[in-house]
Amino acid sequence: MTTESAKTRISIIGGTGALGSGLALRWAKAGCQVTIGSRDSERAVVAAVELSEKAGVMIAGSKNNEAAEAGDIVVLTVPFGNHQDTLELVKPYVAGKIVIDVTVPLMPPKVRTVQLPEAGSAAKASQLFLGEDVRVVSAFQNIAATHLADLDHHIDCDVFVCGNDPAARAAVVELAKKAGMKGWQAGRIDNSAVAEALTSALIFINAHYKIDGAGIRVTGTPLATETH
Amino acid sequence: MTTESAKTRISIIGGTGALGSGLALRWAKAGCQVTIGSRDSERAVVAAVELSEKAGVMIAGSKNNEAAEAGDIVVLTVPFGNHQDTLELVKPYVAGKIVIDVTVPLMPPKVRTVQLPEAGSAAKASQLFLGEDVRVVSAFQNIAATHLADLDHHIDCDVFVCGNDPAARAAVVELAKKAGMKGWQAGRIDNSAVAEALTSALIFINAHYKIDGAGIRVTGTPLATETH
Repeated sequence: MTTESAKTRISIIGGTGALGSGLALRWAKAGCQVTIGSRDSERAVVAAVELSEKAGVMIAGSKNNEAAEAGDIVVLTVPFGNHQDTLELVKPYVAGKIVIDVTVPLMPPKVRTVQLPEAGSAAKASQLFLGEDVRVVSAFQNIAATHLADLDHHIDCDVFVCGNDPAARAAVVELAKKAGMKGWQAGRIDNSAVAEALTSALIFINAHYKIDGAGIRVTGTPLATETH
Repeated sequence: MTTESAKTRISIIGGTGALGSGLALRWAKAGCQVTIGSRDSERAVVAAVELSEKAGVMIAGSKNNEAAEAGDIVVLTVPFGNHQDTLELVKPYVAGKIVIDVTVPLMPPKVRTVQLPEAGSAAKASQLFLGEDVRVVSAFQNIAATHLADLDHHIDCDVFVCGNDPAARAAVVELAKKAGMKGWQAGRIDNSAVAEALTSALIFINAHYKIDGAGIRVTGTPLATETH
């Protein structure tokens, strides 16, 4: 990991959106090699130039399919309405890779009410569709995008990291740390239901208690130090 | 609320279990009039005597159906395997009442993996079965029973309070406070999926990080003071 070319390449599909841009900024600042993808290549490049200026380091931009092909780790930050199309788009490029699914199954107009998809969660649907040779990990659904995009903002929200592959979960806990958040391994991909449902509850709490971006912290002190 | 007879009567169905006993202890200590129910009346009475000694105040014990009839607020703390039977048992007695459903749909042996029931959550199933004139509120699924039963233990876990009736939710937030916990109104009964799923994730986290009773806190500062 001493040469530029050995860096982990992270590609963020739908990376011109608020959440994807925020993650791109934070990971680029932490030294990761980041590409943001968009359906439109010009839009991706324009956004990448803006983000590069903000981050003070290079962030690349390309079409979603090229980004999916280039990434060692592929991150999905698309609206739930585009989730299935995005899975079809990335599938040819992600065999053996870690796919981080950030999708929240919000179904407007009732975004404050939990409406999990039939598979139990969006990330579980991704795992089923992409197949077992793709290591789908669910994370980052509960972070307010505005907080992510503000590099000076200390993020007061932990990250549930769910997936069937322990090593992939551990890698995503490390990526959460690089972006300034505490990740917790929280079980198999089925457990993504927790984080996906939680977003609707937090949107309700934000409205009811007039909070700008409520989050959660996991409490309890580990008896032993964990390295992953 | 100045006379003994005007006190809110709380009946805890399945109240001889660890979670029900812990809630009974804490509410009785806080001045509530508590009855614990069991399928066996002798067992209920024996447990009630023990709990009364521990609490230093009277806790009553009776059969589940009598407890359901006597309570102004009826609390369900039964294993998921007994959930449907319990709903059938209490239904004749709970019209117009608040029913607090604490049921977690754990399906052994895979208790670390989220397996929500077909209705989306156990509490949603309760609301559908009991009908709209019963005010089902979901709460307390994420509190470690051992922490509840230890009256000296400061509970480091917030409570998601979900239900379709705002006044009933507010009443349960107050009851959480009486038991030493911070409750948050978190939306309609559908949102009980959050708390029910979270228990499996916390069980995973307890095992993975060697934590005795992990919990969650909601973060974010309300801009205005809320009284409910």
